[in-house]
Amino acid sequence: MKLYIGNKNYSSWSMRAGVLLAAFKIPHEAVLLRLDMTPGSAFYETLARITPAARVPVLVEDDGFAVWDTLAIAEYLADRHPELAIWPRDARQRARARSVCAEMHAGFGRLRNVCPMNIEAALPEVGARLMAEDAGLRQDLARIDQLWSEALAASGGPFLFGSFSAADAFFAPVVMRVTRYGLPLSAAAAAYCQAIEAHPAVAAWVLDALKEQDFIPEDEPYRTARA
Amino acid sequence: MKLYIGNKNYSSWSMRAGVLLAAFKIPHEAVLLRLDMTPGSAFYETLARITPAARVPVLVEDDGFAVWDTLAIAEYLADRHPELAIWPRDARQRARARSVCAEMHAGFGRLRNVCPMNIEAALPEVGARLMAEDAGLRQDLARIDQLWSEALAASGGPFLFGSFSAADAFFAPVVMRVTRYGLPLSAAAAAYCQAIEAHPAVAAWVLDALKEQDFIPEDEPYRTARA
Ligand SMILES: N[C@@H](CCC(=O)N[C@@H](CS)C(=O)NCC(=O)O)C(=O)O
Ligand SMILES: N[C@@H](CCC(=O)N[C@@H](CS)C(=O)NCC(=O)O)C(=O)O
Repeated sequence: MKLYIGNKNYSSWSMRAGVLLAAFKIPHEAVLLRLDMTPGSAFYETLARITPAARVPVLVEDDGFAVWDTLAIAEYLADRHPELAIWPRDARQRARARSVCAEMHAGFGRLRNVCPMNIEAALPEVGARLMAEDAGLRQDLARIDQLWSEALAASGGPFLFGSFSAADAFFAPVVMRVTRYGLPLSAAAAAYCQAIEAHPAVAAWVLDALKEQDFIPEDEPYRTARA
Repeated sequence: MKLYIGNKNYSSWSMRAGVLLAAFKIPHEAVLLRLDMTPGSAFYETLARITPAARVPVLVEDDGFAVWDTLAIAEYLADRHPELAIWPRDARQRARARSVCAEMHAGFGRLRNVCPMNIEAALPEVGARLMAEDAGLRQDLARIDQLWSEALAASGGPFLFGSFSAADAFFAPVVMRVTRYGLPLSAAAAAYCQAIEAHPAVAAWVLDALKEQDFIPEDEPYRTARA
């Protein structure tokens, strides 16, 4: 099984699938495609051969069968590995985990637009300016803090539904954004960010991201070069 | 169990959940909240009492337990009703169905923006103008046609994965858009639209939508009054 991903530093959707597979120790080979969004790039040419949706991540079985989109990948892995608690075991916790993942999947557009994931960057001044200027960003952040705080209070933590689940893989890139842009959080949400950063699957992804040494201008609205 | 929905004429996400429940004959009470997006409206006041995500649809159990977001609702119903083929029974067909639903859930932004669902309206001139002007819309439509055509060719139809599944509930509002705006389709995609319109759960929803007699200016970029 191969997981096609983009740059670990920049590709938030890739991170969700990559961290999920790593956290549950599901054997796979990761294939990194440089996120070059120029029409006709090697990125799009490779994707065109494996998936009609032309986005990463894509999970590809040895015979070429492709599952695309992070949510479908999570469900496919949960289906194939009933022995792993990819979703919480309790039916209502599972429903809640899926609600917050789906909310993330289609939502938080302002945070995603103005704070693109950039794991190696430190952009607290940008974050402070954006928080002062951008009501949509403040609203997204307030909802994320509430969502995390409610789930953590109900489960007792350290992860959203107790032990690490697909929901945490879905919010790991959000943690990358809020920490790199230094966005203000409640104590409960800040503790959650620490738990996420300390999870071995996340820590390994971050380490790889730091090693990449790539710079993609389209993903860098706030820098002209690496620091 | 209650399903809170918006106007049947306008609320595409509500239609997905409503049609899914109806198609699988899952008993529930539908509660319609007029889609009044003014801050502080009755719509938002009611939602605030039942769901933190402040959007329809929301499925609420008798004891108040809420599942929000269409994708989470579909998974919750599939979990609770293993006797129903809400997702296809074959593991790979199921994975494919989830891939296309997730692609829809986060995608096709241009179609969704410029062709808001409006079941009772006939807007073929608007559709023709948009198709001529808007490359993003043409791209979304091309992908939708390809996605439908591939699934139908693989399954033999009449629905995307043979018999009616959650994937068809997800694409039913897309059918409403492409038909009401008269967007050009391949023969296979046009036949699929007919199959969707003829499904009893869809036909009943459409009939209710036609009866609503409401006019919400925010959802009406192309009309000033009902025809
Ligand atoms: N809904 C998709 C989103 C995937 C996505 O947008 N991936 C980005 C990289 S993080 C991509 O491939 N972009 C290429 C493009 O948009 O052309 C998922 O959940 O997997
Ligand atoms: N991702 C959500 C989208 C739900 C959604 O956006 N619903 C609209 C009506 S169709 C809504 O409630 N809008 C209210 C708002 O955005 O404030 C889902 O799949 O259920």
